[in-house]
Amino acid sequence: HALPMPFGLKLAGYAAALARSRERLRRLRRAAMALQIGGAVGTLAALNDRGLDVAERLAALLDLPLPEAPWHSHRDRLAEVASALAILAGSCGKIARDVSLLMQTDVAEAFEPAAPGRGGSSTMPHKRNPVAAAVVLAAAARAPGLVATLLTAMVQEHERGLGGWHAEWQTLPELCVLAAGALRRTVEAVEGLEVDAARMRQNLEATRGQMLAEAVVLALGSRIGRLEAHTLVERACHRAAATGLHLRDVLAADGAVAAHLAAADLDRLLDPQSYTGASDRFVDRVLKHAAGRGADQPESVTDGEA
Amino acid sequence: HALPMPFGLKLAGYAAALARSRERLRRLRRAAMALQIGGAVGTLAALNDRGLDVAERLAALLDLPLPEAPWHSHRDRLAEVASALAILAGSCGKIARDVSLLMQTDVAEAFEPAAPGRGGSSTMPHKRNPVAAAVVLAAAARAPGLVATLLTAMVQEHERGLGGWHAEWQTLPELCVLAAGALRRTVEAVEGLEVDAARMRQNLEATRGQMLAEAVVLALGSRIGRLEAHTLVERACHRAAATGLHLRDVLAADGAVAAHLAAADLDRLLDPQSYTGASDRFVDRVLKHAAGRGADQPESVTDGEA
Amino acid sequence: HALPMPFGLKLAGYAAALARSRERLRRLRRAAMALQIGGAVGTLAALNDRGLDVAERLAALLDLPLPEAPWHSHRDRLAEVASALAILAGSCGKIARDVSLLMQTDVAEAFEPAAPGRGGSSTMPHKRNPVAAAVVLAAAARAPGLVATLLTAMVQEHERGLGGWHAEWQTLPELCVLAAGALRRTVEAVEGLEVDAARMRQNLEATRGQMLAEAVVLALGSRIGRLEAHTLVERACHRAAATGLHLRDVLAADGAVAAHLAAADLDRLLDPQSYTGASDRFVDRVLKHAAGRGADQPESVTDGEA
Amino acid sequence: HALPMPFGLKLAGYAAALARSRERLRRLRRAAMALQIGGAVGTLAALNDRGLDVAERLAALLDLPLPEAPWHSHRDRLAEVASALAILAGSCGKIARDVSLLMQTDVAEAFEPAAPGRGGSSTMPHKRNPVAAAVVLAAAARAPGLVATLLTAMVQEHERGLGGWHAEWQTLPELCVLAAGALRRTVEAVEGLEVDAARMRQNLEATRGQMLAEAVVLALGSRIGRLEAHTLVERACHRAAATGLHLRDVLAADGAVAAHLAAADLDRLLDPQSYTGASDRFVDRVLKHAAGRGADQPESVTDGEA
Repeated sequence: HALPMPFGLKLAGYAAALARSRERLRRLRRAAMALQIGGAVGTLAALNDRGLDVAERLAALLDLPLPEAPWHSHRDRLAEVASALAILAGSCGKIARDVSLLMQTDVAEAFEPAAPGRGGSSTMPHKRNPVAAAVVLAAAARAPGLVATLLTAMVQEHERGLGGWHAEWQTLPELCVLAAGALRRTVEAVEGLEVDAARMRQNLEATRGQMLAEAVVLALGSRIGRLEAHTLVERACHRAAATGLHLRDVLAADGAVAAHLAAADLDRLLDPQSYTGASDRFVDRVLKHAAGRGADQPESVTDGEA
Repeated sequence: HALPMPFGLKLAGYAAALARSRERLRRLRRAAMALQIGGAVGTLAALNDRGLDVAERLAALLDLPLPEAPWHSHRDRLAEVASALAILAGSCGKIARDVSLLMQTDVAEAFEPAAPGRGGSSTMPHKRNPVAAAVVLAAAARAPGLVATLLTAMVQEHERGLGGWHAEWQTLPELCVLAAGALRRTVEAVEGLEVDAARMRQNLEATRGQMLAEAVVLALGSRIGRLEAHTLVERACHRAAATGLHLRDVLAADGAVAAHLAAADLDRLLDPQSYTGASDRFVDRVLKHAAGRGADQPESVTDGEA
Repeated sequence: HALPMPFGLKLAGYAAALARSRERLRRLRRAAMALQIGGAVGTLAALNDRGLDVAERLAALLDLPLPEAPWHSHRDRLAEVASALAILAGSCGKIARDVSLLMQTDVAEAFEPAAPGRGGSSTMPHKRNPVAAAVVLAAAARAPGLVATLLTAMVQEHERGLGGWHAEWQTLPELCVLAAGALRRTVEAVEGLEVDAARMRQNLEATRGQMLAEAVVLALGSRIGRLEAHTLVERACHRAAATGLHLRDVLAADGAVAAHLAAADLDRLLDPQSYTGASDRFVDRVLKHAAGRGADQPESVTDGEA
Repeated sequence: HALPMPFGLKLAGYAAALARSRERLRRLRRAAMALQIGGAVGTLAALNDRGLDVAERLAALLDLPLPEAPWHSHRDRLAEVASALAILAGSCGKIARDVSLLMQTDVAEAFEPAAPGRGGSSTMPHKRNPVAAAVVLAAAARAPGLVATLLTAMVQEHERGLGGWHAEWQTLPELCVLAAGALRRTVEAVEGLEVDAARMRQNLEATRGQMLAEAVVLALGSRIGRLEAHTLVERACHRAAATGLHLRDVLAADGAVAAHLAAADLDRLLDPQSYTGASDRFVDRVLKHAAGRGADQPESVTDGEA
């Protein structure tokens, strides 16, 4: 990290991204699933002049919108659904990437939930393999190519696309399976995430205060000007790096700094917990937004059909 | 074609697809363009406790929604925009594919507008090269791979994606250029389309009535049962194909058919114009839908910012 | 077509493309299939100092080359195999696209072989649906996205790629199935292709000589200069297009042309069969090349293992 | 890591992968770059019966093979070149991914070379941003989609592909630029890599011996049977994890183990440097292979044209 960041804000970012995917798919359940009927070229000619009436009745029975016109060689709706599924897989992949990085032996800040026979190593009990992350990252790696196939397949011939239409048959179901699997594994991994807060604090300290240099520059700058503050802190950072000392100690020993910032000031400024900006308010916004959606919208994608 | 289809219904299908893309992009103009501000990890810590106020003011000035939380490593919004652009390119590609097929020497039913020094051949004046279609089809071929890149790039690391973020820089602008170019060329080609209605009628007659066999089966079937009707008409079709006779003449000469369908009935049934089903009503629906949208929504994507 | 082209040359182009794919895959059978063994990080440490000997013996037993170093997170060989499979699917797709265009009702020059219950229409016996072409085009549409997945999956972590490796498991087998299916259907379609030579000649005549205008320009140009010849022929073409006359008749009636080209010259020049250039020699080259390969190389990809 | 691995073997893996890409591209310089000439349909008809002679002479002048037959709508050669370029970008991406993981603050084992104004942070002097890795990873993320475009574009129409051909114009050059840039940055990063061997040793010790548990199981197993050995070591690992003790101390204190392995044995077995298997021999193989290639093949891809 370049700057300290509350783990809660990271989780809020995940929640917000997944919530956007949920809204995207909910909307498409209404907007992109349309009735398909019409005969070889879509005119409903075989039903004489009752064609549209039959179509309307069928649409009502299936709870599907009746499209304005035949769409069997206009596949934009399906392509949009495919994109939304791949976007969900991508958001899950981003979370899985983070989890896998946090689980590295040299980081060890958070872990997928342990389960019997899952991801463990008998001779390295402290080691946990990111098995859910692997599945999710694989899904996120496969989904984009499938979307590209469906986008390519949009370029169909007249009223009977040749090959493009057939390419959809395996590709769209695969995308559904990949997105659903990625989501399920991501939820499992994040809901059961084992967080090692002590290790997080320890890793935050690994830079011996330098991660918070920006906070010192800002506080000092408000008194002696930003440029001068930057020069002083940069010098201190180089000294800290060269000597292995904590930045706090180097700064406290520097008269030009100590003249403006007392030891207590430095302690406060170099405390990662004090430099989290609007993190709490961002988390509140995400929670509030989620609560608002929960109130007026059914939780399940299929509830709307009841 | 397997069945006759009014050219107007084909054009209505184009209009409906392009209208859906317009709505898709309009919606994303509001939903997917969000303010991005926040420093290295998005906490706005450098702005002390005024961070969110600054962000709110900036969002208002730029007429952009303020997202619930930092999103610089959650790229679903950009991926959705990218998909919508590629879907537009795909819909244009479908139209261009149709135009190129209609322009084939052996079909010759419709042509891109002629222009000096454009697509013409000096020694084959009747020949017109589908120059706009080539550009549009190339855009539709290139867009899917670019979307795949952006979807792949969603899997970013922590708060600072490495490579994924950088891969967006050239890819998203290229998608914008491709989609805009494809749309422009498609509009030019379709608005100036030169339609050869006489050739269309002539090509419809090329099957010597067999394209309308379904209509005869249905009419005959309502009197003698669908199965029996199908057998009689299939036999007539084979005879017509073997002899080169028009299906009308073969049917009229078949007593089992003539007993139920007079010559006038056959003429009517085998007239392509009489077997268009709900085509007119579909066209009306598309036009009405487009008009409705026009009334309450500004035509230009950018009008909303005024 | 812009110029006449012997159908045999088109087929020779198919043969040459498929032969290149065969050579590509044959070479990769030797170059890209390598032994994979080595334990978690590839060092063979669990086998003490006999590791490499065991690997050499295993490689010999499996008839696989022993790679210079562990490669389980270097997937270039697999990516090359995947590309070669998709290239084969692409070449098949190109052939299928041609077949589908030739089968159009308005072209009708060649058809996939008929088979009971396959691609036929009971009421339109003259109509044949390109069922093999649809399968092949679908494979060619799906393969590129799968290759993109495998190329993306190359970017693996250390000695144990997370997600990238797992993404290969379904993708590579699918590519094999798609390429094999595409090849099989293409061979069936082309080996059993029903060619309507009479219709080809008829379609060649559809431009009433204008397709051969280039031949007249060249012949006339050798006598009166290219520029002057071009002007005369272009004028004749415009007159032919406007009047519906055959270009031969317009040229014969033009004194400036007739002074240099007799009626017999025009007949010869406007005969599509006389303007085929090096087509025959190209076909010979392809056949000779194929024969040469056949002599010293086994037909079957797997023969090399005997 | 699951097991210790010499850094030299990791580098040898990089060298071997890049060497394969070099051979791949060298071969394609001869096999895939072919003369393209022939007029609208490739017959060379405008050159009368001298067509092939002209083509042969031109091929000789350009040092390009003369293909057996016209290939302007058979793009497999270009697709193979594109794949090889993307494979190179992918191999570079794999290296860049490793470098970026090694550069993480919590790992800190190796770093891209420092350069003035490049990747440094003024207030965090110990911090180095993986700027080359970002560029390389972006290239590796973009290349697969471009290859998919070129593979899709193979499905061309007759002798004049519409759109597919045009899609190549920007895509292939972009791939060349991406692959060349990725290679250059990778070479810079790896040639100038700053390795922190002390930190590597320190990180190897982070598991307090558990990384080497496999070695103990094997040594112990050769005396008391693999199953029994595994049970004892697994128990010791759990105790080590629970107590924070070094595995060596737990094993030495376990009578059932100590009866077979003396303290010196344990020291040797738990030394990462003693459990490297065939690593040295693998490195030798890569170096030898590279030297062999260097002797009989020119270094530069373009030397062959001299």
